[in-house]
Amino acid sequence: MRFPAPLVTLIRELGRLPGIGPKSAQRLAFHLFNRPTADVEALAQALLDAKHGLDRCPVCFHVKSKDAPLCAVCEDPRRDAALVCVVEQPADVLAIERSGAYQGRYHVLHGVLSPMHGVGPDELTLDALWARLDGIEEVVLATSTTVEGEATAMYLARTLHERGVRTSRI
Amino acid sequence: MRFPAPLVTLIRELGRLPGIGPKSAQRLAFHLFNRPTADVEALAQALLDAKHGLDRCPVCFHVKSKDAPLCAVCEDPRRDAALVCVVEQPADVLAIERSGAYQGRYHVLHGVLSPMHGVGPDELTLDALWARLDGIEEVVLATSTTVEGEATAMYLARTLHERGVRTSRI
Repeated sequence: MRFPAPLVTLIRELGRLPGIGPKSAQRLAFHLFNRPTADVEALAQALLDAKHGLDRCPVCFHVKSKDAPLCAVCEDPRRDAALVCVVEQPADVLAIERSGAYQGRYHVLHGVLSPMHGVGPDELTLDALWARLDGIEEVVLATSTTVEGEATAMYLARTLHERGVRTSRI
Repeated sequence: MRFPAPLVTLIRELGRLPGIGPKSAQRLAFHLFNRPTADVEALAQALLDAKHGLDRCPVCFHVKSKDAPLCAVCEDPRRDAALVCVVEQPADVLAIERSGAYQGRYHVLHGVLSPMHGVGPDELTLDALWARLDGIEEVVLATSTTVEGEATAMYLARTLHERGVRTSRI
């Protein structure tokens, strides 16, 4: 039995999301089919609003409102501008913020160095990191503890030491 | 740190999907933030197209194209109209179709009887099942093996026997 085309398309699109395999995509599609139209429209609108209403902070590359000049952390004058924590993804900022202990700023790489996957220094936000080093005394390297995360931290530590910036690893 | 409003809304909407907890919703939202605009728009459009382009089959309540009179199974004259398999959800139709062994038709309940959750016979598609019994010789009860699925199968078996229809359970 063939599925109607709009259902096939929806299952395919849902299946592109990370962590959602073909079976989950199907289950989600059927779930949405059974939801009131208003609920599905709200999700579609939220997707569009997020895509069109959000941007990367031009300083740290964390997520920000499109109509704000900077993200909430960079905008906050109480945050220590001499201390920067380098993370892989915006979600990592959130995890660190949740602890409430960190008072510095961030730099979001949007990835890790991964020669296997063709991700070199130019694919990350490293040029912007080098460009903001003036006034930064310490960089906390908070990339993940995967092989690639560790390699990225080592690369950063070496390059930052050459530029006279202290680093620490968490 | 507060998130921009469009991100908060997107995380909330994604978190309403079954099997997606708050952390997964956040991870998905950040993933979508990093995807090209065209990809996110394609997902939003697929949601709207599925919602507006699909409907329930008026005979068996399986999913069908809005512009087709019946679903693909009910439309197929080679399928045995005297044999009907009762399932909980459209996804169950798919699972049975995948085996390729079943040649009858279906009836999708869109749920199970669940007094605990306020789901009585009127909340399911039972009236439509009783209304189509003419010409049906056997009903296969393929509700799940949960307590509620078993109770629903027992209720159906009893009611169908009273109406002179043979049942079997898989």
